[in-house]
Amino acid sequence: MQLPSKLLDDAVQAFAALPGIGKKTALRLVLHLLKEDADKARQFGDTIARMREEVQFCSQCHNVCDQDKLQPDSPPLCSICSNRSRNQEVICVVEDIRDLIAIESTDQFNGTYHLLGGVISPVDGIGPEDLHFDTLLQRIEEQGVKELIMALSPTIEGDTTIFYLSKKLRQPDVRITTIARGISFGGDLEYVDELTLSRSLANRLPYESYLVNK
Amino acid sequence: MQLPSKLLDDAVQAFAALPGIGKKTALRLVLHLLKEDADKARQFGDTIARMREEVQFCSQCHNVCDQDKLQPDSPPLCSICSNRSRNQEVICVVEDIRDLIAIESTDQFNGTYHLLGGVISPVDGIGPEDLHFDTLLQRIEEQGVKELIMALSPTIEGDTTIFYLSKKLRQPDVRITTIARGISFGGDLEYVDELTLSRSLANRLPYESYLVNK
Repeated sequence: MQLPSKLLDDAVQAFAALPGIGKKTALRLVLHLLKEDADKARQFGDTIARMREEVQFCSQCHNVCDQDKLQPDSPPLCSICSNRSRNQEVICVVEDIRDLIAIESTDQFNGTYHLLGGVISPVDGIGPEDLHFDTLLQRIEEQGVKELIMALSPTIEGDTTIFYLSKKLRQPDVRITTIARGISFGGDLEYVDELTLSRSLANRLPYESYLVNK
Repeated sequence: MQLPSKLLDDAVQAFAALPGIGKKTALRLVLHLLKEDADKARQFGDTIARMREEVQFCSQCHNVCDQDKLQPDSPPLCSICSNRSRNQEVICVVEDIRDLIAIESTDQFNGTYHLLGGVISPVDGIGPEDLHFDTLLQRIEEQGVKELIMALSPTIEGDTTIFYLSKKLRQPDVRITTIARGISFGGDLEYVDELTLSRSLANRLPYESYLVNK
């Protein structure tokens, strides 16, 4: 695809470098911005650049947070960690911010989070030293944490990460749990894979806990 | 979806305002940029803004073109219009730059283009005055154009646009043609709609013209 303008081509390349966006989609996005006012395109570009430059990461859980304008010199704390009404003794360990947002939108969890920044995956060259384990272990030591809820994807990598953490933990009184694995609400039994089905049979629960509205 | 940072939220909103990008995809793109260097995100933003501010439109065919650094004061001409080896007597009328790129990539057309910027569509409130008809009629008058190839989408709006132009044209010796409509190469006869099939029967051609490699 030969574009008649170098500027246009640069913009298409920039969009096409993003994940899941091909050259045709990139061209469609660029032509959309070309139809808009120049102000809007400038604003779009500035918003993206500003986000990357100014966004901060929580010094405690590694969640993103905005800079505190009242205390610019103190280590940044996200809105969840700085919320005194949330239970600091329960930490939900997640992979990244998308998982945090998913759990937050259930409105059912009142503890705090810890973002590992990924899971241990030798295939992708991600070892424990690339993830935020040290700050997690430090938090467990200092904050008197009672429970670690491992909300990682149910994959080999996720399980390896849970296993690694359980071996690293030197506090025997900290309970490590994982979110329940089983059949989704609205799921169809006949299409569920054998592993999930056999595990959900083995880990069966009293029927009262399955009711949606208790 | 509640995001923990205003900056992040702004960036997600900016991406989600683009066509075909929802909030979840926007968040994925933003998190990708967040993982990159700050320089890269700044460069991304600048590339987009610069494209919108500096890109020019050809004064003749309305194609996009870069500013001519040698002659900054002359009206901008795109690489196709300024190419002397292209036949200025044949103009291919297209809707927008995407159609131009599609035709250019066939490497079969040696004439020039004219971008209308859309098609007449009363439903969307687009009338003839919103499209680049005046410059087209002026070109036909001044350049001794012999043929207008209407390469518009085969829709009611496309046909209306062709009809409007044929009525507006005051030069009876200019030939107006449309690109052939019929069955695509590799298409399956049984799935072709009745209108296309009946038209392609009526407009049948000597078999030699169907051969791909003549």
